[in-house]
Amino acid sequence: MTGSGTDRTRPPVTAPAPVIILVEPQMAENIGMCARAMANFGLSEMRLVAPRDGWPSGGGLKKGATSAASGATHILENARLFPSAAEAIADLNFVLATTARERGQMKRVVTPAEAMPPLAQRIASSERVGILFGRERIGLTNEEISFADAILTFPVNPAFASLNLAQAVLLVGYEWFKATNGEPPFRENNPSPPATRATVLSMFDYLEGELDQCGFFPPGKKQIMTANLRDILHRLEMTEQEARTLRGVFKSLTEGPRRRGAPKAGEDGPGA
Amino acid sequence: MTGSGTDRTRPPVTAPAPVIILVEPQMAENIGMCARAMANFGLSEMRLVAPRDGWPSGGGLKKGATSAASGATHILENARLFPSAAEAIADLNFVLATTARERGQMKRVVTPAEAMPPLAQRIASSERVGILFGRERIGLTNEEISFADAILTFPVNPAFASLNLAQAVLLVGYEWFKATNGEPPFRENNPSPPATRATVLSMFDYLEGELDQCGFFPPGKKQIMTANLRDILHRLEMTEQEARTLRGVFKSLTEGPRRRGAPKAGEDGPGA
Repeated sequence: MTGSGTDRTRPPVTAPAPVIILVEPQMAENIGMCARAMANFGLSEMRLVAPRDGWPSGGGLKKGATSAASGATHILENARLFPSAAEAIADLNFVLATTARERGQMKRVVTPAEAMPPLAQRIASSERVGILFGRERIGLTNEEISFADAILTFPVNPAFASLNLAQAVLLVGYEWFKATNGEPPFRENNPSPPATRATVLSMFDYLEGELDQCGFFPPGKKQIMTANLRDILHRLEMTEQEARTLRGVFKSLTEGPRRRGAPKAGEDGPGA
Repeated sequence: MTGSGTDRTRPPVTAPAPVIILVEPQMAENIGMCARAMANFGLSEMRLVAPRDGWPSGGGLKKGATSAASGATHILENARLFPSAAEAIADLNFVLATTARERGQMKRVVTPAEAMPPLAQRIASSERVGILFGRERIGLTNEEISFADAILTFPVNPAFASLNLAQAVLLVGYEWFKATNGEPPFRENNPSPPATRATVLSMFDYLEGELDQCGFFPPGKKQIMTANLRDILHRLEMTEQEARTLRGVFKSLTEGPRRRGAPKAGEDGPGA
């Protein structure tokens, strides 16, 4: 997995999306990694509540943040700074608070997969939605969690539950993208249509005729062995092209090394 | 979001799971971060194909790997080293290859969310399954992809598709955990049952009676205003405890600052 899938000719996703609010993040590098995770999944609005090491306002970004963002600097440049979580969420209509620990609050608890489809509906109805993420070591305070409509937590191995800040943002972004878009950047690239049954059966006939001539079938076994062979080959769910390729393979084996002419029409090598 | 949710008293998940195969990873730190992501989601078997900077065999781990693993050292210590991808997958029955780029191969393309439920079925049937991850910069070679049964790719913003190695492993692990377990480490902690309708209606009666005495309802408006108020309060879907708490709130407002005695039975403050 690498960055080589990025297509800079495609416009960035800029549709309305949840605001990501980092409360007192300690390391500029983590802020950068969160920006990168956001960009991966079409989130663009970041808010920072009192970052421990400060945040340059008006031009100039924290160095660690920029390199960790791997190109998602537009998100860092547009990040807004707030003195408190309450002020950072003041204009929002619906707020989730992330936490890895049970807090004993009587608040609904949802996973990202559960949370994102209804959030997408809210955003489609022009609500402004935000997700609070706490400090690297100690998370959100109970008071900050009390600002939220529901708690967002992650299905993780309870024996090893330590997601870092950027990983938590990544999983939220991933489920957001799945809920609102969800398709991978590409699917099968298969220009050939599925083979017709006629092509497949004609290929079987050819193969079975040749095998008969080779004495492949022991006496009385042809019917059952033919059925088994067809079972194996049907499982391929071949395309038209693949059925032709296989026919060419069988023919080449039949003719052996003696004949090295060009393949005839309708018989292609596998690279064709 | 922090590591504070880790519960070291709970046994690590050790059920059979897909093998994670990193092909020629360049940085020990990335190997460590992959181990951490695996541990988060109950994946335990890592294989390394010719790591660029080598890998100590038999005791002693790469320093950067260990610190990046944040405690998932059991995975690094048990990681097996192979000279080639072909050898790393030789004992497996089913193999996925991750890639961010279209390769023009006529191979099925699946997302992690699509791939994991059928993988879980295979593993439940005692098949051995592995997932190949390529080099940080250039991914897997086309030949390595040709070893796989299907291509695994990620739904990402096409304008910013650069997932790093550990993020790709994280998303695979996350979907694996969702497909096989899926529950977050905790849900609502709400010992009080949903309120009975009798408790809610009695609370309404109390409130409406008090408001009547205060002259809250303009002449002729009581019925409609009462219905609206009930609409608002029904939406709370209160627990038994919450209905009592609200009744206590209304009562306290009614009595005002004059009376500062202890609450009577059945009327609690919000902290009760």
